[in-house]
Amino acid sequence: MSGVPNLGDGGCRPVGLELRDVVRPSDVEAVGELVRATGVFAPYEVDVAVELVQERLARGVASGYWFVFAEGDGRMAGYACYGPIACTVGSFDLYWIAVRPNLQGLGIGRWLLGEVEARAGRDGGRRMYVETSSRGAYDATRRFYEKHGYVQEAFLADFYAPGDGKVIYSRALGGAGDAIRDV
Amino acid sequence: MSGVPNLGDGGCRPVGLELRDVVRPSDVEAVGELVRATGVFAPYEVDVAVELVQERLARGVASGYWFVFAEGDGRMAGYACYGPIACTVGSFDLYWIAVRPNLQGLGIGRWLLGEVEARAGRDGGRRMYVETSSRGAYDATRRFYEKHGYVQEAFLADFYAPGDGKVIYSRALGGAGDAIRDV
Repeated sequence: MSGVPNLGDGGCRPVGLELRDVVRPSDVEAVGELVRATGVFAPYEVDVAVELVQERLARGVASGYWFVFAEGDGRMAGYACYGPIACTVGSFDLYWIAVRPNLQGLGIGRWLLGEVEARAGRDGGRRMYVETSSRGAYDATRRFYEKHGYVQEAFLADFYAPGDGKVIYSRALGGAGDAIRDV
Repeated sequence: MSGVPNLGDGGCRPVGLELRDVVRPSDVEAVGELVRATGVFAPYEVDVAVELVQERLARGVASGYWFVFAEGDGRMAGYACYGPIACTVGSFDLYWIAVRPNLQGLGIGRWLLGEVEARAGRDGGRRMYVETSSRGAYDATRRFYEKHGYVQEAFLADFYAPGDGKVIYSRALGGAGDAIRDV
């Protein structure tokens, strides 16, 4: 448990939760279970979420997949996966953020987002990008980002599938752009 | 050597060249040498080009990195790397295309692009995406795509670095969108 205080602008740490950024083999199953439990993601998307954990365990920090886990009583309440984008100076991507369904609405997602932004900024991040779907099922997701300072930068129609476009959001971070350019 | 006829709209096969889509261990060094020789790419970008070949050798077609090599007398004249984008139905990405400097202007790039588009279309590809830099050094690259039917879909200012934005182009392919959704 690193349990560092919240340095982002995303709000307070929810009561009873701690933050961990060390990735363990048991996270493979725990992340799969959590992402599946949200009910939002298709099986192949759950597979991708799990693969990012496996890739991180296999290649370490150099994988480019960095994690923060929110835990209470040793159980995962939510997590986020982010990292520096290869071949860029200070651009980061938020690959994944998910909160256990029965714990949503308590500010855990906001806390994780703030943590990720603060940590990326300390690591030289100038800008955080996040990509999501234009489908109605992701309305709440898009509102979540818009509420927390993310601005739509692009819309790629039919990117995910016919009628399912990709929306790219970004938000400025505090970093100086001195993150390593390729990890 | 597959040496298949050109099925794209990218023009004829340049005299004396054959196409190969099987990836060999010797391609790791050959791709690095070719990409380096273009003089356009920074060392960390050359590393990424090489890593895609290594990833393909390690994980096969499931890596999502598919290749076509243009060869004459057993020497690589140019190559392209493309593949289906995970979690999409029929969207493909052209990750890399490069032609040996002393062989540029002979239609090799156009031939490779047409081959990649035709092959992606046969594999269910609906749309090909390509990302490039907004910097002046990439003016010719952007003109190349625009000349071959690519339309700018998005511009992300300062994406690669301050003053170095990302331009996203796309072009419709003939595929029906029945490509495997996640490889």
